[in-house]
Amino acid sequence: MKHWARFRLPDRRVGFGLLRGESIVEYTGDLFGECRPTGGTVAMSECTLLAPCVPSKIIGLWNNFHALAAKIGKAEPAHPLYFIKPSTALAGPGDIIRRARNYAGKVVYEGELGIVIGRLCKEVTAEQASGYIFGYTCVNDVTAVDHLKETTDFEQWTRAKSYDTFGVLGPVIATDIDVSGLSVITRLDGVERQNYPVADMIFSPPQIVSRISQDMSLLAGDVIACGTSLGVGSMKQGALVEVTIAGIGSLRNVVG
Amino acid sequence: MKHWARFRLPDRRVGFGLLRGESIVEYTGDLFGECRPTGGTVAMSECTLLAPCVPSKIIGLWNNFHALAAKIGKAEPAHPLYFIKPSTALAGPGDIIRRARNYAGKVVYEGELGIVIGRLCKEVTAEQASGYIFGYTCVNDVTAVDHLKETTDFEQWTRAKSYDTFGVLGPVIATDIDVSGLSVITRLDGVERQNYPVADMIFSPPQIVSRISQDMSLLAGDVIACGTSLGVGSMKQGALVEVTIAGIGSLRNVVG
Repeated sequence: MKHWARFRLPDRRVGFGLLRGESIVEYTGDLFGECRPTGGTVAMSECTLLAPCVPSKIIGLWNNFHALAAKIGKAEPAHPLYFIKPSTALAGPGDIIRRARNYAGKVVYEGELGIVIGRLCKEVTAEQASGYIFGYTCVNDVTAVDHLKETTDFEQWTRAKSYDTFGVLGPVIATDIDVSGLSVITRLDGVERQNYPVADMIFSPPQIVSRISQDMSLLAGDVIACGTSLGVGSMKQGALVEVTIAGIGSLRNVVG
Repeated sequence: MKHWARFRLPDRRVGFGLLRGESIVEYTGDLFGECRPTGGTVAMSECTLLAPCVPSKIIGLWNNFHALAAKIGKAEPAHPLYFIKPSTALAGPGDIIRRARNYAGKVVYEGELGIVIGRLCKEVTAEQASGYIFGYTCVNDVTAVDHLKETTDFEQWTRAKSYDTFGVLGPVIATDIDVSGLSVITRLDGVERQNYPVADMIFSPPQIVSRISQDMSLLAGDVIACGTSLGVGSMKQGALVEVTIAGIGSLRNVVG
């Protein structure tokens, strides 16, 4: 298993590389193409981790867990149901999650497994899909949930999901990892609020990639958040939210 | 008024410049930053026009015209209601509009005015917004409309709007143009199907930019499609669809 991180140094330079203990072995080139070690290392204590990739889009699924579908009394979908968070929503480890100034409603966490696409992916089968998955990351699919109920004429999924900083990814991309036995754990101020198995997904990661690739091209670095399960809740100002997946890491953010 | 076009030459080189008669006066640099003439010109007959910019996202409005709201019996919205088309949906003049292979339903045209953002835009007032609008283009906001009714649990706006080639822009970006007196005309196989005034918008372009910039950052080259009005209809394979706005031009595409 490898852990790819992206970082910023105090002089504002941005780089990427592989975690090794308390250091990052720096690489140069294209994480999703050709890259090689620079020969340098950066101490974790010297740098700020950034979102581990810069997606052209983050696709988020709704209602992709058997347990959640049963609890909310919804039929299990026949195809992944999804929305898009724009690139401008991107945030990384340690970034402050900020609501829009004119939004006074609830802001909720949704801890999720994120699929990171490795190369241009269009109309692939579920069998082929694994070859297009570069790795996995943790996602906090932050949602301004009150927008969803503001009008019955139009479900404002895009608006609710797209505030700057609402697409939180990290801390790293784990490659060569079998996610099928893992769980997604979300803690709010240290208290466990979500703990659900990836195995309970209605559509597995390869099925998701295959199905969505029938609809649109997925690009290297695009992220698909696989949907959340039980335990979603609202976050007050100053709260610390942590999404943890064993083998990937813990994605920690404070709500501003 | 200026007309900015982006083009591809037979040797695959991509460039941009200003229309002058049947030629393009080529520029180099960043259309939204610093750019200057190269001294060269390209004959329109020698090149293929491309979408005039490469948006990080295309935002599309629903229900933004008084006439359409009245016809469909919906309340006029209190805030723009919108979805996002990803960058991968981009298509330009002359591109073939392609449905997903596994989608057998209706594909509809929606002729629209597109706002092209000129620079990073966040939390601006309607008064400030004009300073962030670089210009305007024609949009065909193509929609796989049957997805919207497939399940009552989740409105699939993103899926319906996001197929590759469903975000059609062009033929040019017109700058220094007053759009308030213009009309959007859509013709299908030469027959006029839409002809509605921009002045009938519920939210005007500066109001749209201001409101959406409260929700998320808009980047240089991002496009906001201002919504459509009466006359939306379905397109059969082989149909020629044309969106025309006086002062901008005609955006023509065939359905594949």
